[in-house]
Amino acid sequence: MSDPLRLGIAGLGTVGRGVVRIVQRHGELIAARAGRAIEIAAVSARDRSKDRGIDLSALAWEDDPVALAQRADVDVFVELVGGSDGVAREATEAAIAAGKDVVTANKAMLALHGQALAGLAEARGHVIRFEAAVAGGIPVVKALTEGLAGNAITRVMGVMNGTCNYILTRMESAGLPYETVFEEARQLGYLEADPELDVGGIDAGHKLSLLAAIAYGTKVAFPAVELEGIGKVRIEDIRHAADMGYRIKLLGVAQMTGRGLEQRMSPCLVPADSPLGQLQGGTNMVVLEGDSVGQIVLRGPGAGEGPTASAVMSDVIEIARGTRLSTFGQPAATLRDPVPARATAPAPHYLRMTLVDKPGALAKVATVLGDEGISIDRMRQYQHSDTSAPVVLVTHSTTRDAIDHALSRLPATGVLTGEAVAIRIEKV
Amino acid sequence: MSDPLRLGIAGLGTVGRGVVRIVQRHGELIAARAGRAIEIAAVSARDRSKDRGIDLSALAWEDDPVALAQRADVDVFVELVGGSDGVAREATEAAIAAGKDVVTANKAMLALHGQALAGLAEARGHVIRFEAAVAGGIPVVKALTEGLAGNAITRVMGVMNGTCNYILTRMESAGLPYETVFEEARQLGYLEADPELDVGGIDAGHKLSLLAAIAYGTKVAFPAVELEGIGKVRIEDIRHAADMGYRIKLLGVAQMTGRGLEQRMSPCLVPADSPLGQLQGGTNMVVLEGDSVGQIVLRGPGAGEGPTASAVMSDVIEIARGTRLSTFGQPAATLRDPVPARATAPAPHYLRMTLVDKPGALAKVATVLGDEGISIDRMRQYQHSDTSAPVVLVTHSTTRDAIDHALSRLPATGVLTGEAVAIRIEKV
Repeated sequence: MSDPLRLGIAGLGTVGRGVVRIVQRHGELIAARAGRAIEIAAVSARDRSKDRGIDLSALAWEDDPVALAQRADVDVFVELVGGSDGVAREATEAAIAAGKDVVTANKAMLALHGQALAGLAEARGHVIRFEAAVAGGIPVVKALTEGLAGNAITRVMGVMNGTCNYILTRMESAGLPYETVFEEARQLGYLEADPELDVGGIDAGHKLSLLAAIAYGTKVAFPAVELEGIGKVRIEDIRHAADMGYRIKLLGVAQMTGRGLEQRMSPCLVPADSPLGQLQGGTNMVVLEGDSVGQIVLRGPGAGEGPTASAVMSDVIEIARGTRLSTFGQPAATLRDPVPARATAPAPHYLRMTLVDKPGALAKVATVLGDEGISIDRMRQYQHSDTSAPVVLVTHSTTRDAIDHALSRLPATGVLTGEAVAIRIEKV
Repeated sequence: MSDPLRLGIAGLGTVGRGVVRIVQRHGELIAARAGRAIEIAAVSARDRSKDRGIDLSALAWEDDPVALAQRADVDVFVELVGGSDGVAREATEAAIAAGKDVVTANKAMLALHGQALAGLAEARGHVIRFEAAVAGGIPVVKALTEGLAGNAITRVMGVMNGTCNYILTRMESAGLPYETVFEEARQLGYLEADPELDVGGIDAGHKLSLLAAIAYGTKVAFPAVELEGIGKVRIEDIRHAADMGYRIKLLGVAQMTGRGLEQRMSPCLVPADSPLGQLQGGTNMVVLEGDSVGQIVLRGPGAGEGPTASAVMSDVIEIARGTRLSTFGQPAATLRDPVPARATAPAPHYLRMTLVDKPGALAKVATVLGDEGISIDRMRQYQHSDTSAPVVLVTHSTTRDAIDHALSRLPATGVLTGEAVAIRIEKV
């Protein structure tokens, strides 16, 4: 059996604690599988005296993650500090410079600096692995990078922020408005310190951009992700969607179209009886589609101590076994610049608007839609007040451009009260 | 870039044709991902003149798979002949002896001889990979061997025979008896030449035994799998199950209990609204449970040219990338002899029986169940003839032993007409 693989773990929050627990609990099991022992040489965290419920007495301590990353007795730097920049990035760069492999759960850092970091590491023959950064315990980075490596990937989709899915699920089941459930989620501690990372779709967008790079052999292009959070999802949209057999999910879609790479993270309607539609609460789901394999669906816990630590250990054991993969499935230097395309893949759309209650109102709307080449699949008018009526339409497949043109022309018809809302219906 | 990796493909049926197509179609994509070109050096099949819709003109031909396995210009022997013994095994052994790595889709061969073949290969520093042997296009071997390597696996479950799931789904949706749907499936070409491989649970049992070896670090123990096919599943059981919120699936379960390794492949009831319960038609699903990760669900096509070839290519690209994994996740020489345990994990059970229509009949049944420590969760009596009444019970959690004791005592009560049927309800 080879020498032990020695870890330096920076960050002892939920995930770091989980990694320490697995290494301490499963030493024998892991050694049997990895072909060598895995040991923790040293750790680093903000507060040495804090009781974390784990025994750190046998481990060296560094106050400074950068010093940890540079220790001679560390083979793999495990970055669990978080944050796109600052000490996480500094320590990761230091680890690479010092000749270490890196395992990280840091989606923000990789979404913004993954290209540069992977380039640095690969130029020196080191690896950066990040299974824990995307969809928690689901081994989706591995499935996409390796399991589907023989496929031209046609689409990647995912519900990858458990907090948003919890909020949307809870809105539907309890019939509560967004603001109320948002406040509940905050009190339950489900939200990041900056909640916009969750509900604005940023965190999920980071993850999508990482999967897109692997899927299409393109540089990570997080700024090109079209981001729309869940803050505008109204309880009546959830109800109308359910009424027509759909659920609303914060869905990420990465797709290579004739015009370029489309990356969207936005609320979408999906069939209520599809695997994505049936996903409840904080669970994550990723759908991978390839030209040979067809559709693969992966479902599992997207966060939490055990699941995320499990993903970190997958990368650590991979390195211990001697597997050396490029961060994004092919050398960073060979990744192409993606041509960003804005929502060009056509799809049916859900439209909600409130019409003044007078003859000919619907005809005017239908005319505008028809002028833009949008045909109507289904329409429902709901119970209404004396003066206005909520109307919900499902269109046949059309582009976002056509929808946006139509929406911009609708106010001029004079038959709408308030704004019309359009949500894409993703075929799943 | 390194030298090309050269394949020798034995077997040009559905899967072999698919592999040739992927290599020919995606040369550039695969080379970018693998870091080297992948080429087909030579092929072998039964009939050279057969038109397979693929261009073999540039490839060397061998009539004998053993000769193919020994060719100097072959690096990886791709075994797609099938069958547990005969030429598949002979050629695989020849390939190992000749210093080749092996990629195979052959579950039967590995379930019966995997331990010996892996031992042979590993003693010589070669690898045998078999992603395509289990659940077609779903990268489940990789997910279990690598993605969950940091977990003590607590349970592996799977619906891994698409034909059986098609038959059970179709029985429910069309309300047809087993025999009719079996005949339909035969005419559609869904069944193996020996249908017992499918409907007897043997094929799915092979797959389960391979996953169990990885999960628990034990030698492949296919003969220890408790096999029960779907031939005894009656349409009324499917109906009664649906009536109580369940579906019947041919479900494989591998679980390490206090008494040893339990491996079952048998019809089970699962909640209709669970991912397993919602699985329709020929799709496969594998559920992996680990102590840290919790539950991961993988869903995808379990058979067919594209999906199976995709899995073969995953292994080929893994080898091209330089990854060298033990066949079962740890060296074959270190796999332990499993202690087989027969269905000791307790579970609720579904019981169906027909009682004579006279006072006290149900009380006698309840007494027998009570004597065996079996308590009743739910009971339904269905519309009946003048002289007898079908009764369906769902028990609380109990062992198969207790159920079997009760079943053996029921005839002596004199209140049953016909046989009582018991089906396990697996908690999913």
